[in-house]
Amino acid sequence: MGEVELNKYKFLQNIDSPTDLRKISQNELPTVCNEVREFMIDTITRTGGHFGAGLGIVELTVAMHYVFNTPDDKLIFDVGHQGYPHKIITGRRDKLQTIRQKDGLSGFLKPSESEYDAFGAGHASTSISAALGMATARDLSKKDYKVVAIIGDGAMTGGLAFEAMNNAGVQKRDLIVILNDNNVSIDPNVSAFSNYFNELFASSLVNSFRDNVWEMTGKHGELGDRLRKIAAKIEDGVKAIVTPGVLFEALGFKYFGPINGNNINKLVKMLKLIKDIKGPVFLHVMTQKGKGYAPAERDSHYLHAIGKIDKNTGNPLQLLKDKIPLYQTVFGESMLEFCKKDEKLVAVTAAMCEGTGLDVLQKEMPERLFDVGIAEGHAVTFSAGLASQGVKPVVAIYSTFLQRAYDHIIHDCALQKLHVVFAIDRAGVVGADGPTHHGVFDLVYLRSIPNMIVMAPKNEQELKDMLYSALYVYTNSCSAIRYPRGKGLGVELREARPMELGKSETISKGTDIAVIAIGKTVVEAVRAKEQLQNEGISVELVNGRFIKPLDSEMLDDLASRFDLIVTIEDGQAMGGFGTAVLEYINTSEYQCKVEILGIPDKFVEHGTQEELYKILGLDTEGIVNKIKNLLDREPVLEEKKLKKF
Amino acid sequence: MGEVELNKYKFLQNIDSPTDLRKISQNELPTVCNEVREFMIDTITRTGGHFGAGLGIVELTVAMHYVFNTPDDKLIFDVGHQGYPHKIITGRRDKLQTIRQKDGLSGFLKPSESEYDAFGAGHASTSISAALGMATARDLSKKDYKVVAIIGDGAMTGGLAFEAMNNAGVQKRDLIVILNDNNVSIDPNVSAFSNYFNELFASSLVNSFRDNVWEMTGKHGELGDRLRKIAAKIEDGVKAIVTPGVLFEALGFKYFGPINGNNINKLVKMLKLIKDIKGPVFLHVMTQKGKGYAPAERDSHYLHAIGKIDKNTGNPLQLLKDKIPLYQTVFGESMLEFCKKDEKLVAVTAAMCEGTGLDVLQKEMPERLFDVGIAEGHAVTFSAGLASQGVKPVVAIYSTFLQRAYDHIIHDCALQKLHVVFAIDRAGVVGADGPTHHGVFDLVYLRSIPNMIVMAPKNEQELKDMLYSALYVYTNSCSAIRYPRGKGLGVELREARPMELGKSETISKGTDIAVIAIGKTVVEAVRAKEQLQNEGISVELVNGRFIKPLDSEMLDDLASRFDLIVTIEDGQAMGGFGTAVLEYINTSEYQCKVEILGIPDKFVEHGTQEELYKILGLDTEGIVNKIKNLLDREPVLEEKKLKKF
Repeated sequence: MGEVELNKYKFLQNIDSPTDLRKISQNELPTVCNEVREFMIDTITRTGGHFGAGLGIVELTVAMHYVFNTPDDKLIFDVGHQGYPHKIITGRRDKLQTIRQKDGLSGFLKPSESEYDAFGAGHASTSISAALGMATARDLSKKDYKVVAIIGDGAMTGGLAFEAMNNAGVQKRDLIVILNDNNVSIDPNVSAFSNYFNELFASSLVNSFRDNVWEMTGKHGELGDRLRKIAAKIEDGVKAIVTPGVLFEALGFKYFGPINGNNINKLVKMLKLIKDIKGPVFLHVMTQKGKGYAPAERDSHYLHAIGKIDKNTGNPLQLLKDKIPLYQTVFGESMLEFCKKDEKLVAVTAAMCEGTGLDVLQKEMPERLFDVGIAEGHAVTFSAGLASQGVKPVVAIYSTFLQRAYDHIIHDCALQKLHVVFAIDRAGVVGADGPTHHGVFDLVYLRSIPNMIVMAPKNEQELKDMLYSALYVYTNSCSAIRYPRGKGLGVELREARPMELGKSETISKGTDIAVIAIGKTVVEAVRAKEQLQNEGISVELVNGRFIKPLDSEMLDDLASRFDLIVTIEDGQAMGGFGTAVLEYINTSEYQCKVEILGIPDKFVEHGTQEELYKILGLDTEGIVNKIKNLLDREPVLEEKKLKKF
Repeated sequence: MGEVELNKYKFLQNIDSPTDLRKISQNELPTVCNEVREFMIDTITRTGGHFGAGLGIVELTVAMHYVFNTPDDKLIFDVGHQGYPHKIITGRRDKLQTIRQKDGLSGFLKPSESEYDAFGAGHASTSISAALGMATARDLSKKDYKVVAIIGDGAMTGGLAFEAMNNAGVQKRDLIVILNDNNVSIDPNVSAFSNYFNELFASSLVNSFRDNVWEMTGKHGELGDRLRKIAAKIEDGVKAIVTPGVLFEALGFKYFGPINGNNINKLVKMLKLIKDIKGPVFLHVMTQKGKGYAPAERDSHYLHAIGKIDKNTGNPLQLLKDKIPLYQTVFGESMLEFCKKDEKLVAVTAAMCEGTGLDVLQKEMPERLFDVGIAEGHAVTFSAGLASQGVKPVVAIYSTFLQRAYDHIIHDCALQKLHVVFAIDRAGVVGADGPTHHGVFDLVYLRSIPNMIVMAPKNEQELKDMLYSALYVYTNSCSAIRYPRGKGLGVELREARPMELGKSETISKGTDIAVIAIGKTVVEAVRAKEQLQNEGISVELVNGRFIKPLDSEMLDDLASRFDLIVTIEDGQAMGGFGTAVLEYINTSEYQCKVEILGIPDKFVEHGTQEELYKILGLDTEGIVNKIKNLLDREPVLEEKKLKKF
C-alpha cells in the first residue's frame, strides 16, 4: 500500500510542533488545513481508525494551536477520538500510521504519549470537569495559562458535562468551553437539547444572521462599541435567536456563537476575540463530521471508525463476507424475535444503538427501543422505573461504559429487586481502543451486588439462551450477561431454551487437571484441552456459564477429585470469577488450590484482541503452557502440603 | 415522653389513607396541613429523624394527594427524606414514631413499605429518570395514570437529573416534574443554576408578580383565553422573568411557576390546572425548609436531621458533652492542619461540607475547599484535573455516594495514575439511614482498580497518619482511606507520622488462632481477644490496615503457623478484604483456610449501628462466639483433610 508521501504537503512536512504552525502566516492556514485533512485521509484510509470526527475538526484544531500557546495552554479534548488532526500537528505526524496498533499511537489522547495531550479520555463528557480542575490548579499556583475544553454535542448530553458547567459557572474562573456541534453524534430523537439547537439553526432567521454579524459576538459587550451595537440590535429585534445563549448564560457562561467551525479564518478571529475574556466562556462551533471527504460526508455514521478503506470510494478493502455473526448481531436479532412475542419487552441503550446491534429493533419496532443518549446512569434508572411498572427492560451498554451506572445498578435496580436485564457488550479486552475501553471490571463489581445474577456465554447460542432465561426464568432479580466484542463461534442458531440457574456445562471429563473457563475463554480452553490431550494430558473442562450464582455441585465434585482447579476469565483476576470459585472452595470441606488465569492488576494497553490475549496468556497457547507448567509443579506442591504442621 | 395524642388532630385522626383526605372539603385543607405539620413536630422532636425538608413540603404533599389519585397516580419523591408528611397521610401516621428504628418505618421511601411509595431512593437525583420510566411503562401498557416527580433544588444539580430532563423533553410523554426549591439544600456558592434562580427571585420585579398573575400560568396558552392574555402581557413587558422557563422549555418542558409552595390553596389550584396538560410539564415551587417550626426556620441546616430534641427550643435533649471526636472531625481538622503547611493541598466535596468535617477548612481557608454540589462524578474528575497540574486533591465523599463516581475513579484518576486521595466517610454500616446509605461495597470495587491503595484506620490517629501518608508518602498512585460514621476511640491525637505502605500492625501474638481485622472492626476484635484470653484461648491479632497492597510478609508468617485465619471487615464479604487475604494465601505455598467475617450477600436493613453489627455478628460477642465455634470445629476439619484423596 506504500507510505504516505510527506513531501507533497508543502506546509505540513515542516510542522513538527505547534510552534512551527504558529510561524506560518494566517492567510496560509486554509492550505495548512487542507494538507492536514488530506494527510489524515491518506493515512487513515490505509490504516483504519476514527475518521469522521477528526475530519470535521481540522480547522478548529489548527485554529486552537495557532491562537493558543500549547502545550502551556491546555487543550482538553472530550473523548479524544477526534484528536487525529491534533496528533498530526503536535509531533506525531509520522507515527499516525501506527494508530491503534500495538505499541503505536493511541486512538485517544494520552498524556503519557505527548505533553500536548493535557488529559486522557475515552469515555465521554469528562472534559469540562477536568478543564475546571486545571483552571483551578492554575489559579491556586498563580500561573496564567489558558484552559480550553472541546466537547461534542453528543458528550454534552452526559450528566457529568452539566455538573461541570454548573460548577464552572459559579467558580467564575477563566475557562473556555468549545461546543463542537456536528449534529450527528447523536440520534436526533434522543436529546431535547440537540433538537432545540437544530430547530433554531434550521430557521431562516438564524441563517440570515449566521454568516455576518452574529457569529462575531455574544450577548456581551466586552468586544467594543461596534459589536455591542450589533449585539443590542440582535437582542431587541430577534429575541428568539438569543435563546441558545440564555441556556448557558443561566449557568454563568458568556455565550458566543454559533459560528462556522470549518472556516479557519473566522475561527482564528473568534478565538483571538474570546481568548482573554475573563470568566467562563462558551463558544458554540458548528462543524461538519467527515468534512472534506465525500464518502464520510455522505454517511457520517458509517465512517465514524473504519478499517482500511478504498480512499476513492470509502468502501472497506477487505470485503470478506463472513457468515459468522457478531455477538451484537445475535443479541439484536434475539431482542427483535423476543419483542415480537412479548409486548412487555423493551430495550434501552445509551447512544449505542448500532454498536449494541439494536438497530434491527429500532428499524422494525422503534417503539420498543429507547436510546437515551450518552447517559448511562439515566439509562439504568429509567429502566428501573420501567421495571417497577411491569415492563421488562433490557439495558444494552458496553461493559466499560456501564461503570458510569454502577450506583444506579445497586441503588435503583438491585436494592429494589427489580427485574432489569443488563446486556453487557464489549466485555473483556476490546482491542484497538485500549485501556479506556477494555471491559474488564464488570465481573468484579457486578458479582458483589446482592440480587444480581451474572453470566457469560461461551458462544452466540448461549447468549440467546441466557437472554431468554434472564427475561423469562430468572424473573425475581437483576441479571447481567456479559459477552465479548466481535464474532461468535459460528454455531447454528436455534430457538432459545431456558437455562437452569447456576448450572455449568461439563465439556469433557478428565483426570489430570480441572479447568473452568467462562465466556470467550471457553473456546480457547477447548482448543487447549485438545492440544493437551494429544500430549497425553487429560483435562476435565467445564464451561462455567454462571459467575453468580456458582454451580456448587460441580465445584464440590471437582474439589473432591482434584488438588488444583484452573479458572480462566477475560477480566480482572482480582475479585473476579476465579476468586468466586476460590471463595466457594475455601468454605467447602476440601483443600484445593485454585489457579486463576485472568488479567493482572494493571491496565491493559491497546493492540488487536488476539495480540492482547496472547500477552495476557489467555489464548490457546498460553493456557496450554500454563497447564503444563502447573502439572510439572504439582509434585512440589504435594510435598509442601505434607510439611505443613 | 409519652405518646402523641391523636385525638387533638380533628382531621388527621381520621385520615388513614389519601382517600380519606380527598373526602375533606378544600377549604379545610389549611387546617389539615397545620395538623400534619404539628403531628410531625410532635413526633419527630420525640423520636428524631429528618426534619426541615418534611416541614417545608407539608402543603405540597397534601395538595398532591388531594389532586392526584394516589396510589394509582405515581408520586416519586427524590431522595425521600422529605417523605414524612407523605407517610403520615398514607396510612403510616401511627407508625411514624418508629421511624429509622430497627423494624420501624424507613427514613426514606420504600416500595416494600407502602404501595404509595412508588420508587425507593436514598441517593439524590433519581426521581425524574424513574418517573420517565414509569410514564413510558404506562404508555406501553396503554394505561392512563399520572406520574409526578418531586425533586429538590439540591438534587437538580446532579447530572442524572439533567440526563433525565433532556431525555424526557424529547420523549414528550405526559410527565410532571415539580421542583421543590427551598434554596438551602445547597451552599449558595456551589450551583450556578441555583444562583441564577435566586437572583431572579430576589428582584422586586418578580415579587410584584409572584403573588398575583404569574403563578397561574406558564408561557403556554392551553389554559384559556384569560390566562393566555396575561401570559402574553408578561412575555412582552417583563422579558427577563420569563427566563427561568426558557431553561426548561429548551429541554422540551412546559414551565409553570414559580409559586408559593406553602400556600395550600394556590397549590391545589395550580395542580388541578396542570394535571391534564399533555407532554412534560415543569412546575417550580418555592418552599421554606423548616416551615412552621421556629427553631427549624431559623437554622435549616442544623435541623436537617435530628435526634430527640426539646420541642420548644429545638435543642438536643441529650447534651452529653462527649470529648471523643467524630472521625469526620479528625479528618476535617487534619486537613486544616495539613493545608496550613502545604499550599498545594485542597479538599473537594459534593454537597457534604459539614458531614465530612470540612466545615472547619471552609471557615478558615475557604479557598482550599471546593464544594461542587451533589455531583460526585464531577467532584472526582475535577480532582483528576487538579492533580494533573500538581495540586493535591483530597476528595471527601461518603462511601455510598462515591459509588456514583466509580467510573471516574477508574478512567480519570487511576488509569492516568494521578495522585488523588479519596477520604471515604460513612464506610461500613451507617445505621438509621439503612440500605441506601450503608457504605459496604467500597472495599470490593476499589481494590480491583490498578494504581489504587486502599486503607482502613483502626482509630482516629491512624486516619490522620493514613491521610498524611497518602498525601506525602504514596505520591505515585491514588489512595483511598475508608472510615466509619461516628466517633473515634478517644485516643490522644499526636502529629501525623508516615505509615509504611502495606504494613500491618500485630496487636498480640497468640497460638490458637489468627485474626486479621480492619478499620472499625479492630476494636471489637481487641475486646474479643481479651475475652477469649480470659477463657484460655490465645489469639494472634493483627490490625490489617491495608486492604491493598496486602502485607505479604505477615500473611506468609500467619499461614505458616496457623491452619485457619479469621478475617473481619465491615463490608460485603464477597470480594472484599477477607477475599483478598484468601487470594494471597491461595497463591502461597501454604494450605490454610480463611474464615471471612463480613456482610453476607444481602442488603442490610436499618437500625442503630450497634444493632446492625450485632445482627451481622461483627460485634465483640459475635466475634467471640464465632472463634469459639471455629476452634471446636477445627478437629473435624483436620479429619476431613485426611480423608481427601
